[in-house]
Amino acid sequence: MNRYFNFSAGPSMLPLEVLEQAQKEFVSYGQSGMSVMEMSHRSTVYENIINTAEQDLRDLMKISDDYSILFLQGGASMQFAMVALNLLVNSKKADYVNTGQWSKKAIAEAKKYGQINVVASSEDKTFSYIPPLPANIFDKDADYVYLTLNNTIYGTHIPDDRLPNTNGVPLVGDMSSNILAEPYNISKFGLVFAGAQKNLGPAGVTIAIVRKDLLGKHQAITPTMLQYSIHSDEKSLYNTPPTYAIYFAGLVFKWVKKMGGLSAMFENNKKKAGILYDFLDNSKLFKGTVVPKDRSLMNIPFILPTEQLNAEFIKQAQDLGFVNLKGHRTVGGMRASIYNGMPIEGVQKLVEYMEKFEREHKNI
Amino acid sequence: MNRYFNFSAGPSMLPLEVLEQAQKEFVSYGQSGMSVMEMSHRSTVYENIINTAEQDLRDLMKISDDYSILFLQGGASMQFAMVALNLLVNSKKADYVNTGQWSKKAIAEAKKYGQINVVASSEDKTFSYIPPLPANIFDKDADYVYLTLNNTIYGTHIPDDRLPNTNGVPLVGDMSSNILAEPYNISKFGLVFAGAQKNLGPAGVTIAIVRKDLLGKHQAITPTMLQYSIHSDEKSLYNTPPTYAIYFAGLVFKWVKKMGGLSAMFENNKKKAGILYDFLDNSKLFKGTVVPKDRSLMNIPFILPTEQLNAEFIKQAQDLGFVNLKGHRTVGGMRASIYNGMPIEGVQKLVEYMEKFEREHKNI
Repeated sequence: MNRYFNFSAGPSMLPLEVLEQAQKEFVSYGQSGMSVMEMSHRSTVYENIINTAEQDLRDLMKISDDYSILFLQGGASMQFAMVALNLLVNSKKADYVNTGQWSKKAIAEAKKYGQINVVASSEDKTFSYIPPLPANIFDKDADYVYLTLNNTIYGTHIPDDRLPNTNGVPLVGDMSSNILAEPYNISKFGLVFAGAQKNLGPAGVTIAIVRKDLLGKHQAITPTMLQYSIHSDEKSLYNTPPTYAIYFAGLVFKWVKKMGGLSAMFENNKKKAGILYDFLDNSKLFKGTVVPKDRSLMNIPFILPTEQLNAEFIKQAQDLGFVNLKGHRTVGGMRASIYNGMPIEGVQKLVEYMEKFEREHKNI
Repeated sequence: MNRYFNFSAGPSMLPLEVLEQAQKEFVSYGQSGMSVMEMSHRSTVYENIINTAEQDLRDLMKISDDYSILFLQGGASMQFAMVALNLLVNSKKADYVNTGQWSKKAIAEAKKYGQINVVASSEDKTFSYIPPLPANIFDKDADYVYLTLNNTIYGTHIPDDRLPNTNGVPLVGDMSSNILAEPYNISKFGLVFAGAQKNLGPAGVTIAIVRKDLLGKHQAITPTMLQYSIHSDEKSLYNTPPTYAIYFAGLVFKWVKKMGGLSAMFENNKKKAGILYDFLDNSKLFKGTVVPKDRSLMNIPFILPTEQLNAEFIKQAQDLGFVNLKGHRTVGGMRASIYNGMPIEGVQKLVEYMEKFEREHKNI
């Protein structure tokens, strides 16, 4: 079997042992006499799968019973509308922090449904930093404050200990690219959501964690399928959910537990990212694009002095089995996305290649 | 390996050889060095997968270039809103035919966005027939006419040769439970949609086939993700689609082609349903619940004279490996869902069991 080190920003590398377990039970799951894909979502065997997945995620992230955990569809892009339609129900005002392309899309979408104020932005420097977020920039009357917690494209993040004080206004966090990768105190949030395809499993399932006091309201025009309350009331079984994707995410949750939980993931991710950042900080050829204090543990953009060198580096990397290293067109250069599923060997070997590349190009 | 005959209404039985192929290449697909689940949706290898799936579906259903084929999320329940939000844009009136629970849900959802007229209904007799649909019941000024083509719960269908004349008003069809099971001339429709989890693959991908002249308009309140035009313009890659579910549906399309295409599926489905209906029509104990002319080829509800016998039949069936035969609570009794993935042996063996059950209960 031929497996590459896949640095894709998402969908992305999944733990090999989880893939192998899913493969083993793919055609016939346990004593069920069928594939998980073939199970009625209303069957006892499937209800056990989805309930176990929910409980494991609750344990891993220490989510209290004040929150509903929902398995939805449509990715973060659907959440951009769903958040606004469900939460813009009192003052119909919300404060957004603009830290990249996904924040911008969320802002554009929310503007259809209320008065959106962009209270801070790092667009002036290609989103290479997180803007200061003092309490006095937030409107006490807003329905919520919206943050992108990890910026996949630009490689910045807002860790738990730098979440802003919003004067009691519910905080909404897009955790798509760092869920289960670093710890957050969920009780600081009103709502958190994440597409699965980076740290959790296959694309097609989206997790939403919603504080229950925020449920029960939505704008009148909201499609039924976009009402958090319906999915909370029906325990994510209002209609057929993406059953297989939820099952697979459940296997990933078990794997994270087995690996030592979220704190072990966090330590491992700091170690993995540290290897790469240490190299970048000491390199005379490669350069990280993000200010050190705001660097993501998941997405690490870096550049070489010329476009030609970038292209040469990416081409050679591909031949060596380091794939999907091309950076986003708005940043250029390279980006290594190193989610939970990327083994430390992948980062070590990438850095060895970068060292070799630097030695071979030291006279440039 | 232990495999049951699974008569679930959906998710439901998939072709064993497709499951086995997907299992084989689950961890590492071809020369890609990764699982399909781990592939960037923007990679060449994945674009080839989704483009091939689209072309195969186009070939199988003889869909002309006047139509866009979209891979969406959210199931039919999301389409109930999406159809209305995208098509209620001129007179903001639409005609709906009420043939069961799914039609009712579609009607309730569409009422949020326009003036919905229910022009025919079979609710008076528990939806056990298809009401007459003469051309004069339809409003020439309506934006569309809406039909559920196969009623999963009640076991009725509207075959291609009984589609109504709508005086040129676009016809919208919910084909969730009979797509690729019986032929329809797509050129009679403005829009057709189908959740995948019955005849196409895993839950989590929804196919929409939209006539291109209906694209480009939507109500102003429509979330971006619910605009058909966006998905058509971006070839279903506006955001990360449910990549694995699309891949699996693509394998099913290849399988249908290999089996002889849609006409072969149709012949096989008539044969399978015929075995069960012939038995029901000749039984003194079992009784089909649908008027013969409107019987579905996919979902076959039937009853025994007493609740006790129904329960006994279902219990024994389960022990014999015929699972998920319990009927929907609004119809009672039993329902055998026999989609494309159900082998003819499953139906033959079920009927053998029914014959045996009847012999053993002939004095009741």
